Amino acid sequence: MSDTGITVKKSADFSEWYTETVLKSGLADYAPIKGCMIFREHSYAMWEKIQDVFNRKIRATGHNNVYFPMFIPEGFLKKEAEHFEGFVPEVAWVTQGGETPLEEKLAIRPTSETIMYATFAKWIRSWRDLPLKINQWCNIVRWETKATRLFLRTREFLWQEGHTVHATSAEAEKEVADILNEYRDLIESYLAIPVVVGVKTDSEKFAGALYTTTLEAIMPDGKALQMGTSHNLGQNFGKVFDIKFVGEDKQDHYVWQTSWGITTRLIGAIVMVHGDDKGLVLPPKIAPVQVVIVPIPYKGADPAAVAEKAREIYAALVEKGLSVVLDDREEYTPGWKFNQWELKGVPVRVEIGPRDVSKQQVTLARRDTFAKIAVKEDEAVEKVARLLEEIQHNLYAKARMCLEEKTSTVVNYDEFKKVLSEKGGFIKGSWCSSAKCEEKIKEETGATIRLRPFEKEKPVANCVYCGEKAVETVYFARSY
Amino acid sequence: MSDTGITVKKSADFSEWYTETVLKSGLADYAPIKGCMIFREHSYAMWEKIQDVFNRKIRATGHNNVYFPMFIPEGFLKKEAEHFEGFVPEVAWVTQGGETPLEEKLAIRPTSETIMYATFAKWIRSWRDLPLKINQWCNIVRWETKATRLFLRTREFLWQEGHTVHATSAEAEKEVADILNEYRDLIESYLAIPVVVGVKTDSEKFAGALYTTTLEAIMPDGKALQMGTSHNLGQNFGKVFDIKFVGEDKQDHYVWQTSWGITTRLIGAIVMVHGDDKGLVLPPKIAPVQVVIVPIPYKGADPAAVAEKAREIYAALVEKGLSVVLDDREEYTPGWKFNQWELKGVPVRVEIGPRDVSKQQVTLARRDTFAKIAVKEDEAVEKVARLLEEIQHNLYAKARMCLEEKTSTVVNYDEFKKVLSEKGGFIKGSWCSSAKCEEKIKEETGATIRLRPFEKEKPVANCVYCGEKAVETVYFARSY
Repeated sequence: MSDTGITVKKSADFSEWYTETVLKSGLADYAPIKGCMIFREHSYAMWEKIQDVFNRKIRATGHNNVYFPMFIPEGFLKKEAEHFEGFVPEVAWVTQGGETPLEEKLAIRPTSETIMYATFAKWIRSWRDLPLKINQWCNIVRWETKATRLFLRTREFLWQEGHTVHATSAEAEKEVADILNEYRDLIESYLAIPVVVGVKTDSEKFAGALYTTTLEAIMPDGKALQMGTSHNLGQNFGKVFDIKFVGEDKQDHYVWQTSWGITTRLIGAIVMVHGDDKGLVLPPKIAPVQVVIVPIPYKGADPAAVAEKAREIYAALVEKGLSVVLDDREEYTPGWKFNQWELKGVPVRVEIGPRDVSKQQVTLARRDTFAKIAVKEDEAVEKVARLLEEIQHNLYAKARMCLEEKTSTVVNYDEFKKVLSEKGGFIKGSWCSSAKCEEKIKEETGATIRLRPFEKEKPVANCVYCGEKAVETVYFARSY
Repeated sequence: MSDTGITVKKSADFSEWYTETVLKSGLADYAPIKGCMIFREHSYAMWEKIQDVFNRKIRATGHNNVYFPMFIPEGFLKKEAEHFEGFVPEVAWVTQGGETPLEEKLAIRPTSETIMYATFAKWIRSWRDLPLKINQWCNIVRWETKATRLFLRTREFLWQEGHTVHATSAEAEKEVADILNEYRDLIESYLAIPVVVGVKTDSEKFAGALYTTTLEAIMPDGKALQMGTSHNLGQNFGKVFDIKFVGEDKQDHYVWQTSWGITTRLIGAIVMVHGDDKGLVLPPKIAPVQVVIVPIPYKGADPAAVAEKAREIYAALVEKGLSVVLDDREEYTPGWKFNQWELKGVPVRVEIGPRDVSKQQVTLARRDTFAKIAVKEDEAVEKVARLLEEIQHNLYAKARMCLEEKTSTVVNYDEFKKVLSEKGGFIKGSWCSSAKCEEKIKEETGATIRLRPFEKEKPVANCVYCGEKAVETVYFARSY
């Protein structure tokens, strides 16, 4: 692996391209401990942007951030049987504190339902205490045994988990849908990644939920990536943890609950969907650096004039509220800087050379198309701002086309297998709704039902596997 | 314990008052697992404010946020012997992943020097890679065996840890001092808590550091609380982890390093320093809610007029950039609301009744002094803003007086013991600089040297313990 620059084409070896891009752009690094990763400043800054956007959304709808302990006594985790079975194979266990073996071993949270809900039972007494709507940003541990993939599969990752408690089933249903919509807006409008939305089948739902709603995106290699999930927990946990409230009717009722989450894998999705052979391509709304200014002091020309102009433009762009870097380091050449900032995916580069100064212009270079345009100095700020919007839209439009191109409809199993092996992507197929067909398809092809779409489409054929009467059209894919 | 309202006076039973105030104000709760706590929305929002303030400070000086794994292989922790010895008694160990015992047990980070520096060795090659200045906000585990005190001593807590790497000793020294100044500004100007600053003695310094600088505050019960520390690590870790760089002189050099941190115990300090018999009193700059508006609809009067006025004032205060709650819940009385918001420490309450409406005024109530003033409607926003500033200053001034009142100077050991038992607080005493005297004093009285002040004062007497010639004046205290 060369020290700088991506050596593999995205179209040639997607997996290797991904790893090189993540490492060389400075997004992340492998940790000196198996299965873990380091979120370097460039990716952590994107995570902070995601946090800002999502915090604004959920605060506006009355959710509050909190922090619960990461230790969960084994007994708690065991209370909801389905939940325990779903998570126990991947739990990291603390068994010793200082020199002393613990009496009961402690799970490091794989998710926080059980530790939180044991407390909710204490907090909730009356209908006046509802709804309870909280969220926490934290680290999560799931002891993966497969190979690490940066952002996509590591033993520790970061996420947000929302947990809400309601007096009625209808309110919980609405919450699940509202949050999925907020996720969709975050992912489509900010990350510029189009998704399809729907409900998981029973075999794919969250362990302990009534049902799970999901957002799924398609990656350039044809595999689906689950981008976020929003679960209706019904009264399952409420009954197990005895969370009851006295209603306005003076009667005791079990509560209705939801939980929902997105993780740092979203950063991996941004890399995969938008990146190119030169490295990252970041959507302006989520880019930690939106604009980089590179002064180009030619030999013979006055370097002070270029430097001064660069500082002026820098100040004007910052004033506009943009996130800007003025890269005036003397130990690197302009060419080296161009490559570095392209690798890091900065959406717009402003070049200022002696000729630009004399012509009272600056040169703008787009990261997404590599197009360069000269604009008048006094219009530069407006042009940059407009360009950022254009790039944001362009990235979404390109990804949307890719999603459409990678969505196929099949009418029988032969076609299903052919499309899956030749093209991958989402395969819309008719399904009889039997878990057995779902399982067989997974066994034989590795594809799972990613979702049952909210927008129902009548089955165009009989069940793609068994040939019996189909009930609905679902989305299949191989996935990360 | 009654359900609402503090039942113990702060002056009567400080410890019990503290616990009641934390629990009843909704700041925090005990977790259903020994030694751990839950940061509820009211305290987590304060932590987020602290994060905002401090992030702005360190970003302005070129530090970037990152995230490293929380698992540290035992072998790493062992590399720096003093560091290992200092932390190993309090480490929680993960020994099992899923069903499988781990080959090497993993510490949950008690601090991240070792895991980070193993990686720095890989990242740093040349002087061009320096300085490296990173920070991380994360959870930390230290397996305390003493009784839990909310915010002050729990097995898991939240903190910020900064880590920087420099080419020269002078740069590292400057960084340590600069950060301590930023902490001081955060704590004094935002949290309204005055501190004394200085250097820890060798026996109290961070395990593995060259020296530790500290900020110490005094609590109303006369015990000191360490508010933050900034360590000069010298080349200790650099040599152990082999972190070298090629200098401009083409030679290999070991790096110079610093680390520094503040924790969620700062929230405990805010409670202790400013709270009163009615509950929390929050400094406006750190209060999640700065202003609460309580409409008071008397019987017989037009409730619509009051409600409309309340909404107008609310909009105007929000427009001003303040954090405001309009408490127009119908299921609670105004009196109940007053108590609740006083308990939660909201700095200013705006009351609006029918008489206020008819007189085109509103009533402002200060949380710190309970003073009430009527102000004209069209001046309300300006008056509230000014009042918040006044409260901020008043809280600091009161705490400053308390600090001065609780600082004594003694000339011999009898006086030392008398002041310690009768009054507590900081005791300035002359010290011969021997670790033996320091240890004896700790053994016999429980007081430690909190710091050797930056502002040197000539010893006014011989060593307070041994009576030999003293070298300097230091601050003693019992501490949390």
